[in-house]
Amino acid sequence: MPHAPCFASDNYAGVHPAIMAALAAANSGPEYGGPAKAYGADALTQAARQRIIEELGHNAEPFFVFLGTAANVLALAAMTRPHHAVLCAETAHINVDECGAPEKHLGAKLFTVPTPDGKLTPELLRPHLAHLGNEHHNQPRAISIAQATELGTLYRPDEVRALADFAHENGMYLHMDGARLGNAAAALGLTLRQASSDLGIDALSFGGTKNGLMFGEAVVFFRPEFAAEFPYIRKQAMQLCSKMRFIAAQFLALLEGGLWRENAANANAMARLLAERLAGAPGVAIEQKPQTNAVFAQLAPAVIERLQARFSFYTWDYERNVVRFMTSFATTPDEVDVFAAAVRAEALAG
Amino acid sequence: MPHAPCFASDNYAGVHPAIMAALAAANSGPEYGGPAKAYGADALTQAARQRIIEELGHNAEPFFVFLGTAANVLALAAMTRPHHAVLCAETAHINVDECGAPEKHLGAKLFTVPTPDGKLTPELLRPHLAHLGNEHHNQPRAISIAQATELGTLYRPDEVRALADFAHENGMYLHMDGARLGNAAAALGLTLRQASSDLGIDALSFGGTKNGLMFGEAVVFFRPEFAAEFPYIRKQAMQLCSKMRFIAAQFLALLEGGLWRENAANANAMARLLAERLAGAPGVAIEQKPQTNAVFAQLAPAVIERLQARFSFYTWDYERNVVRFMTSFATTPDEVDVFAAAVRAEALAG
Amino acid sequence: MPHAPCFASDNYAGVHPAIMAALAAANSGPEYGGPAKAYGADALTQAARQRIIEELGHNAEPFFVFLGTAANVLALAAMTRPHHAVLCAETAHINVDECGAPEKHLGAKLFTVPTPDGKLTPELLRPHLAHLGNEHHNQPRAISIAQATELGTLYRPDEVRALADFAHENGMYLHMDGARLGNAAAALGLTLRQASSDLGIDALSFGGTKNGLMFGEAVVFFRPEFAAEFPYIRKQAMQLCSKMRFIAAQFLALLEGGLWRENAANANAMARLLAERLAGAPGVAIEQKPQTNAVFAQLAPAVIERLQARFSFYTWDYERNVVRFMTSFATTPDEVDVFAAAVRAEALAG
Amino acid sequence: MPHAPCFASDNYAGVHPAIMAALAAANSGPEYGGPAKAYGADALTQAARQRIIEELGHNAEPFFVFLGTAANVLALAAMTRPHHAVLCAETAHINVDECGAPEKHLGAKLFTVPTPDGKLTPELLRPHLAHLGNEHHNQPRAISIAQATELGTLYRPDEVRALADFAHENGMYLHMDGARLGNAAAALGLTLRQASSDLGIDALSFGGTKNGLMFGEAVVFFRPEFAAEFPYIRKQAMQLCSKMRFIAAQFLALLEGGLWRENAANANAMARLLAERLAGAPGVAIEQKPQTNAVFAQLAPAVIERLQARFSFYTWDYERNVVRFMTSFATTPDEVDVFAAAVRAEALAG
Repeated sequence: MPHAPCFASDNYAGVHPAIMAALAAANSGPEYGGPAKAYGADALTQAARQRIIEELGHNAEPFFVFLGTAANVLALAAMTRPHHAVLCAETAHINVDECGAPEKHLGAKLFTVPTPDGKLTPELLRPHLAHLGNEHHNQPRAISIAQATELGTLYRPDEVRALADFAHENGMYLHMDGARLGNAAAALGLTLRQASSDLGIDALSFGGTKNGLMFGEAVVFFRPEFAAEFPYIRKQAMQLCSKMRFIAAQFLALLEGGLWRENAANANAMARLLAERLAGAPGVAIEQKPQTNAVFAQLAPAVIERLQARFSFYTWDYERNVVRFMTSFATTPDEVDVFAAAVRAEALAG
Repeated sequence: MPHAPCFASDNYAGVHPAIMAALAAANSGPEYGGPAKAYGADALTQAARQRIIEELGHNAEPFFVFLGTAANVLALAAMTRPHHAVLCAETAHINVDECGAPEKHLGAKLFTVPTPDGKLTPELLRPHLAHLGNEHHNQPRAISIAQATELGTLYRPDEVRALADFAHENGMYLHMDGARLGNAAAALGLTLRQASSDLGIDALSFGGTKNGLMFGEAVVFFRPEFAAEFPYIRKQAMQLCSKMRFIAAQFLALLEGGLWRENAANANAMARLLAERLAGAPGVAIEQKPQTNAVFAQLAPAVIERLQARFSFYTWDYERNVVRFMTSFATTPDEVDVFAAAVRAEALAG
Repeated sequence: MPHAPCFASDNYAGVHPAIMAALAAANSGPEYGGPAKAYGADALTQAARQRIIEELGHNAEPFFVFLGTAANVLALAAMTRPHHAVLCAETAHINVDECGAPEKHLGAKLFTVPTPDGKLTPELLRPHLAHLGNEHHNQPRAISIAQATELGTLYRPDEVRALADFAHENGMYLHMDGARLGNAAAALGLTLRQASSDLGIDALSFGGTKNGLMFGEAVVFFRPEFAAEFPYIRKQAMQLCSKMRFIAAQFLALLEGGLWRENAANANAMARLLAERLAGAPGVAIEQKPQTNAVFAQLAPAVIERLQARFSFYTWDYERNVVRFMTSFATTPDEVDVFAAAVRAEALAG
Repeated sequence: MPHAPCFASDNYAGVHPAIMAALAAANSGPEYGGPAKAYGADALTQAARQRIIEELGHNAEPFFVFLGTAANVLALAAMTRPHHAVLCAETAHINVDECGAPEKHLGAKLFTVPTPDGKLTPELLRPHLAHLGNEHHNQPRAISIAQATELGTLYRPDEVRALADFAHENGMYLHMDGARLGNAAAALGLTLRQASSDLGIDALSFGGTKNGLMFGEAVVFFRPEFAAEFPYIRKQAMQLCSKMRFIAAQFLALLEGGLWRENAANANAMARLLAERLAGAPGVAIEQKPQTNAVFAQLAPAVIERLQARFSFYTWDYERNVVRFMTSFATTPDEVDVFAAAVRAEALAG
C-alpha cells in the first residue's frame, strides 16, 4: 500500500488494469491495432456501440463524449431549446458543480427543487408546471435525475418509472445522470438495462470515468429524433473525439464480463465496510446507511482538520461539519481499515 | 506491415509507444501511480505544466483540454466577447471544420479572408479594420492563424511576427492554431519556442493528438489576464478533465528527449519522400513542394476512385480532383513505397 | 370615467398626455421635426442624454433601449461574462418574469436568494461568496436589486449603499433595476440622483414605460469601461432603435418640470388611498402598508373570482389567495373609490 | 421646406401623420383609449393581427416586435438550431449590419454567397449543400432573402418561388426580410400577399419603420409549428412590448386604405425622379435604373465631400466612390429638384 488511503472522490482513482490493457490492445493489438478511421467511423467504435445496444436495448442510441459534464449537458441539449427549463434537484451536479455549463450551453434555465435526500418526486415537481403556456416563463421540458444521486442515495425502479410517466404526461422528457449508474445498478441488484432504459427514461448519461476508465462517457438516447441531430450537437459542442476508438475500447472492456459491476460492487462494499468500521465510534455521526459508494459523517472541526492533514477527503457541508468519504473500484479493505482506525482515533481524541 | 498504408489523416494514426508507456506509468508506475488529485491538482499535471513553461518561456501559462477544436475555441474565448470578430483564413479549420463551434461558443463572428495559400498577411487583413468603432459591425479583436496551415504551408518567423505587430498595433491579439506546430517547427528547424512564443503571439493551441498522443491538447497563454479567467472558461466549456494526469503524462513524454520533433520530422520526411516517389509520374500532378506532412495531388477521377477502394485518403477539392495524402509519425518508408507504386500504376492506367 | 377602473399593472396604463405631445413635437415640431440622423446621432437624443446626465451626475453614461427587460439584461451583460453569476432576490423580475432572458443572453447563472420582503442584504448574500476562486462554480460578479422591489417595498438609501460597499469589497458591481425608480424616489422624498447614483451603484435601469411613457428605458452606467463597450452590446442585442429620437423625446418630457415625480407620486398616493379605503374592511387583509404603488391583499377565493369578472387585477400568490392591486400615473381618486367600494362589498358578501 | 433635403436613409424620415394620429387615438380615442391589457392581449393588437391575416392569408401568424433586426433574427430563431446554417447574400443586412446579432442569438453560422446584385438563386446556393449530413459542418436550414434587396434590386415573383421550392426540396425554409416589402410590392405592382405569402415563403419580416412608422415590425409565420413556440422566443429575446397596442395601432393605420402602398410608391417615385434628374449629368454615373427607393451613383471624391457638407447621404463603396441616395415616404419632388441641381452643379465643378 504505497499511497495514503484516498477517500476524496472516485475520480481520484486511476485506471483499472483491464481498461489499460484494452487501451494498449486498441493501439497495437492484433485485432484493432494500427491506423483506424477517425471520429468514430472505426470498427472498435462500432463494436462498442453495438455492445451498449445489447446491454441497454435495441432502441438505445449511444454516442461517446469525453466527460460527464458534457454527457449531461449534451443529452439535455438534444431535448431542449433555450426557452425551456430543466427541472432538477437543488443538489444536482448540473446545478452546483459545472460552473454554469448548462446555462451557457443550453441558454435555458434550471428550475431547482429542494429535496430532503437528493431525489425528485412528481409531488416536488408539480408546482413548476404552474406557468405552462405562459410566455413570461421558461417552459419545463426536461427532468434530470442522478442515479445514484449526489448524496449517495438511490431511486427505486418504481420511483424512476413514476418520474418518467410524470414527465411524459406533461410534455417533458426524463434524463438520467448515470455518472454512477454502475454503483446504483450493483446496489439495487439490477442489470444496467433494468436500472435505466427499462424504466422509461428518454436519455442516459452512462458514466465510465468514475468506474475505472481513464476518460470517456456515453450519451444514450432512447428516442430516434434525439439521435438524429446529436452528431452535430456533439461536434459543435467540442466533444467529438478524433481517436474515438480509445473511448470505445474502454467501454467494451468495462462491459466485458461484467467488469462494471465488479468495480462498482467493490466501491459500494468498501463504503459499507467503512460505515461498519465507524459505527458507534465516539465523535463520529454517520449520516445514514450508505446506499452506494459514499459515506457522510459529522465530525468535530478539529478532527476534520487533523484527518485532512493525513488523508484526502472533502468537507461536504461546512456549516454542519459533515464530510464525505468516497470509495472506488480501487479501494481495498486494508485501506478502509487503516483509515477507519485513524478516524476513530482522531475522533476519540476530539 | 499488417495494415494497408493509410494516408487519410494524421489522426488516423494510433498512439506512439512511448506515449502508451507514459500512460501506463502514470497509472501504476512507482513515481506517479495510485490515486491522485482530480482536475489537475496532481503532481504530474504540475510537472507537465512546468515542462511546457521551460519549453515555451517563463511567461507561458499552459492549460490542458481534451481536443484541438476546444483548444482553438477556448483560446479565442479568453480573448473575445460576443461583439468582437475573429479574423481568419477562409480555409481555416475553425471556419470550415468545426460545425460552427466558434460561433456557438463565442457568440462572435468570424471575418474570413480568401488567401492563395492558407496564410494571412497584414495586407489581406487591413480591409477588415474599416469599421472599427462602428456599432453596426463586430469589432476585430483576434487574428487566428494555423501553423502549419490547413494547406500544409508554413509561415516564416518574420511573417508571424509581422502579424503579431499588426494585431497589437490595432488593438487585437494573435492566436496560433498549432495543431501541427511540431510539424512546422521541425520543418523550419526551430525550437517550439522559436516557432511560437518568441514571435509575439498571445495564445497558442499546442497540439498533441496529431503528433502521437491518444488525446489532449494544451492552450498556452502569454498574457496573465487571459490565464486568470481561463479555469472558469475551461470548466464551463466542458473541457476540464477529471483525471487530468493522463493528459499531462502524454505531454511530458512528448516533450521528453524531443519526441515531438522526432515524430513530426518523420511525418514531414515521409511526405517529402512520397512527393519524390510521385514526381514526374504520368497522370499525377503534385500541387506544390510539400512543406510539412501533406501532399496535394491532382489525379483523374477514375484513378482516385480505384485508389480509394484500396487505400484510405481524402479528396480535398472535388471540382479540381485534388486529393490530400497525409503522413504521420507512424508512416514508414515501406508504406510510402507501396503506396507510391500503386498511385503511379493506377495513374498510368488512367 | 369611460373605462372600468384597472388595477392590473402600471403597464396597462396608456401614455401621459405630455409624453404624447412630446412625440408629436419630435416628429413635426419647429425645433426637432423633419428628418433626423438615425440610431441616436440626432440632436434630440443628445439633448436627452445630456438631461439625464444633469439629473444623475456627470459620471452618468445613459443609453436608450426599448424595454425594461433589455435594460436589465444589457446592464448585466456589460458587467459579466458567462462564467460569472448574478446575485438577486428569488422574487426578482429578472429571475421570474423574463422567460430566462438573462441566462440566454448572458450565458451566466443567477444565484437567487430567498428574502422576506424582496430586499437583499449583505448578510443574505455572504454565503454565495463561499466558492470564490473555485473553478467548478460561477463566480459572483454582479448584484441586482430592484428599487422599488417587485413586492412594492423600498430600500432605504443606507441599505443600498451597504450593498454597494459589499459588492465593491468583494469584486462585484451593483445594478439597480429602476423600472419603478420614480415611485421609489417619490416615496422616499429623494431626487433621482439621491435615490440611485449617489448611493454607489454601478449601473441603473432607468424605467420610463411604467411611469407614463409609450416605450423606452435608459441604461445608465457610472463606470466608463462599461459605457465604452455598450454600443456594440446594445446593437448586437437588437436594442438599437433607429428612430431613437422618439425615445429621447419621451425621456426629455418625463424629466421636464419633474413630470416623473408627479406621475409616480400620483401612483403612490392612489395606492395609499386604496389601502386606506380598504382598511378594516371585513374579509380584506391588507398585507402591509403600501410603500409605493402596489397594494397586496388577501381575499377569499370566491371574492377574487367575482371581482376579477368586473375589474382587471392579478392574483399574486395562488396558495395564499393574495392579490395585487397596482396603481399608475393615470389612476384617479374616483376610480379608487369605485373599486374600493366594490372590493368591500364583495368581501362582505364573502 | 425648413430642412435640408435628406437622402441618407429611409429611417431618417419621421413618422407619417396618419401614423401619429393612430398613436394618439390608441391612447385616448373613444374606441381604444384608456387602460388596456399589456403584452398584446388587448383589443387593438387582436385587430391588427386580424388585419394582417386578411392581408397575407389565413395561414399567416403575425407577431409584433420592436425593430427589423429582431424581426429577422427571431424569424430565423424559430427555424433553426445552433448547428444549422442560414444561407444569405454576402451583402445581406443580417450579415453586414447587425453587429453579429444572428450569430450571437442563434449560435448558428451564416453561409454567405457573393452575388452580382444582392439576389440569391438556387444555382448560387447549391454548392452549400455539399456537406449535408456531415457532422463537421453546420447544416443548411434556412435561406434568407431581402425583398427589396439591400442593393435596391427586386426579386421577380417566380424567382422567389424558385427559391422556396429549392429550399423545401432540400429540407430548408425560406425567410423573406421585408424591411422594404412595401417598396417591393409597390414597384412590382403586387399586393403584399402576392409579393410574399403567395410565393411559398415560410416566414416574413414585415417592415414598418422604414415605411413611415415610429417603431415596430411584424414577424409573420406561415407554418403553425413556428408560431407555437414563438411567444417564448420573443419574450426571451427581449422583444415583447408591454404596451403592444402602440405597435398594433401603427400597423392598422399602415394597412388602412393602402397607406403602405402610398408611402412606398412615393419613395420609389422620388428615386426614379432623382435618377431622371441626374441622368446624363457630367461627372455623375448612375449605377443602374433604380427599382425601388435607392439610387446608387459614382461621383468624384471631392464632389462627394462637398455634397456631404451640405446634405445627408452615405458613401456605399469607398473603393469605387459610389454613394447611395435613399428616398422615403416623406421625400418631395421639390427636395429632389433642389438636391439634383446641387449634385449636378458640384459634379460639373468636379
